[in-house]
Amino acid sequence: MTAVDAPCPDVRLTRPVRTPSTPIRVGLLGLGHVGSAVARLARTRPPAARANIEIAAALVRDPLRIRAVQDVPLTTDPDAVFLARPAVVVEALGGLEPARTLVLEAIARGLPVVTANKSLLAHHGDEIAEAAALAGVAVRYEASVIAGVPFLGTFARRPYASAVSAITAIVNGTSNFVLSRMQDLAVEFGSALSDAQRRGFAEPDPFKDVEGVDAAEKLAILIRLFAGRRVAPSDIETTGIRPVTPVDLRLARELGGTLKPVVTAEGLTSTTGPIGAFAGSAFVPGTHSLARVHYVSNGICLRAAGGSELCFTGPGAGPDVTAVTVLDDVLDAATGRAESWASAATGSLAVPPNTTWFVRVTSAVPQPSSADIATLLAAHGVWTERSAGPDTRDGRPSLALLVRSCSRPRIERAASALAAATGSSVHAYRALEAGS
Amino acid sequence: MTAVDAPCPDVRLTRPVRTPSTPIRVGLLGLGHVGSAVARLARTRPPAARANIEIAAALVRDPLRIRAVQDVPLTTDPDAVFLARPAVVVEALGGLEPARTLVLEAIARGLPVVTANKSLLAHHGDEIAEAAALAGVAVRYEASVIAGVPFLGTFARRPYASAVSAITAIVNGTSNFVLSRMQDLAVEFGSALSDAQRRGFAEPDPFKDVEGVDAAEKLAILIRLFAGRRVAPSDIETTGIRPVTPVDLRLARELGGTLKPVVTAEGLTSTTGPIGAFAGSAFVPGTHSLARVHYVSNGICLRAAGGSELCFTGPGAGPDVTAVTVLDDVLDAATGRAESWASAATGSLAVPPNTTWFVRVTSAVPQPSSADIATLLAAHGVWTERSAGPDTRDGRPSLALLVRSCSRPRIERAASALAAATGSSVHAYRALEAGS
Repeated sequence: MTAVDAPCPDVRLTRPVRTPSTPIRVGLLGLGHVGSAVARLARTRPPAARANIEIAAALVRDPLRIRAVQDVPLTTDPDAVFLARPAVVVEALGGLEPARTLVLEAIARGLPVVTANKSLLAHHGDEIAEAAALAGVAVRYEASVIAGVPFLGTFARRPYASAVSAITAIVNGTSNFVLSRMQDLAVEFGSALSDAQRRGFAEPDPFKDVEGVDAAEKLAILIRLFAGRRVAPSDIETTGIRPVTPVDLRLARELGGTLKPVVTAEGLTSTTGPIGAFAGSAFVPGTHSLARVHYVSNGICLRAAGGSELCFTGPGAGPDVTAVTVLDDVLDAATGRAESWASAATGSLAVPPNTTWFVRVTSAVPQPSSADIATLLAAHGVWTERSAGPDTRDGRPSLALLVRSCSRPRIERAASALAAATGSSVHAYRALEAGS
Repeated sequence: MTAVDAPCPDVRLTRPVRTPSTPIRVGLLGLGHVGSAVARLARTRPPAARANIEIAAALVRDPLRIRAVQDVPLTTDPDAVFLARPAVVVEALGGLEPARTLVLEAIARGLPVVTANKSLLAHHGDEIAEAAALAGVAVRYEASVIAGVPFLGTFARRPYASAVSAITAIVNGTSNFVLSRMQDLAVEFGSALSDAQRRGFAEPDPFKDVEGVDAAEKLAILIRLFAGRRVAPSDIETTGIRPVTPVDLRLARELGGTLKPVVTAEGLTSTTGPIGAFAGSAFVPGTHSLARVHYVSNGICLRAAGGSELCFTGPGAGPDVTAVTVLDDVLDAATGRAESWASAATGSLAVPPNTTWFVRVTSAVPQPSSADIATLLAAHGVWTERSAGPDTRDGRPSLALLVRSCSRPRIERAASALAAATGSSVHAYRALEAGS
């Protein structure tokens, strides 16, 4: 037995001694939360890195603002960034413009680009891909989806592994935080959202996050990468997390699951058929790998050709986490080949898939029984598997039913008929299958 | 609402039309289960792949044996493989020799090598790394650990993300199958192992799997990759799954967890201190991400610098799964830079870490109470947190205790004293913390 603090008897330096290498110069567009974290982290060099990274210049709006990051040459002129001889340009502005123009400008100048900007990629991915291919320049965007978990580049380089038939993921940390908080503290949406804002997990204007717009953009990036196909984020069925109430979460728990902000896409191996896709709050059974992805963690599960499932989970956002991923992209873009992850894609139709559903029915007393509700739904071809409730904590009784797979129009017709016949308010959430 | 079967209105082929490219020629060493699956899968080309793969020659022992794979030129002469002008050599022989000699021969001839051979890498990683660096040749081994989940190459390319402090993983599918089966069917070790063998999930000689030797080899590969440090697999504390009984699994469940074949390594960010490492059956709390990795699935969790955790789970083994990963490595090695994942490593000491423990005590009647046992353990500085049982289904009563973190010598002294004082048989398993 060797003591814990014994000196290592076998230390032998077999790595060749390196002469200090020239640092990799980065032109940084934007010095907000992410840009600042990138500048801070660039001062460190992990043992396995072969070169230092140096911020050659940073584009800012207001050079006089007091900043936590010092020692970075600031400029308000994009040209000054390009002229600072960067090896790589990091776009950390967010939003569509001027990000799009400056990224295209960098590419045109033959400079590799690293970005975490999902809106930019979801909306202008084709244009950027074509420009990058033309210029023979690398574009890296690992941090655009699940910022803290590297997987996009992995699959971009691995065509056999990336031939997956379906994707299921949690890609929006704000929404996941809000629903996790609502579940754990039994609070309403508004209260949980304020909490997220106080902790910096939600923007002052949280619209894009809680309405599912951010998630739909990321899903479009995933579809592009895994299927080589292009769908407009606005064509994806998108429902936010706003309708979710504490009673929904209690009933979901009673049914052995929870509600999560989920994106899914299926039909990815077909090269011509439509892609079934949605982004929205969905019932996730407790046995599903995503059921334990809570708060600001994100996760993605891929159904491989043989039917097996690969899942990747970890931190979804945050400046420090994003900076790690961006700097690894910088090293990769600086030393790597121009092979682009952003290859152009074939246009595709996004259609709402058939899924199972979680239907919550809230009524004035006396509430119809779950058997009565099941009969009413069956009259519209919607078949109930299980039910839970009534939950009466809110005064009015609520029931929940898990029903078999059907289309959105069918569940909506059944829900409308049910609401009309019983005077109930009815809300249907998509439900993931336990197996996937 | 667009109908599901409507023709896609926006299909536009933006990918450049390619002239058929020259196939990538592979020299295949070995045509067993994995080699055959590689040859079969090489006939397909996923949409995202830029080239076909063609098996130029396959080294076999018996060219007259009837094989499922046709159309592959067979040879018993390694030189004939090297002379078949392969762009990449795939080593699918397994074991140390002649795999080591032939891999070194390929490297010396300037040929990139792809292998899934964990024993070879764990024992001769340095030699192969040095040869590859000298020849400027790529060596890829993504399938050597969790064959169906690409992550090794990802982190090899990403030094910021790979600066992790600790690893916890399930890397042996055979052992995980056996324990999952024992848990679900309440059968003994021998019966579950026979079952695994019948299904082809265990070798006829399962020694390396069930005794933890395979897991320790894979852990050595992980330590080399994530810490740039070299430990001999035989220096890692290794315990197999043989001691695990159905009563252990029942008591573990009562304590909210299960027993899993786990490897862990900590202290990875230090460049000089010892690395705390073990490979063996351990108590995994139900809230841990690995608690749901069952049967032949594998998984790895990495503790990142900021304290966040990344987990990757998926199929751990099997010829078809391995072939996917090997062929992606072939494409990468054929088109990629020579930057090697197999950089040489600094020698390091592996020491058994302090952990919490799951202690099972089986006694003749009358059994000491859990309070009595806790008092006896406390006399040796071992502090009980929770207990479960007695479980009397086997005739003799068994209790289990979860105790606070301490060293292996300490728990062993306490367990011996307990056994002597009470006439009980005592077994201590390491336990993972709920948080990690």
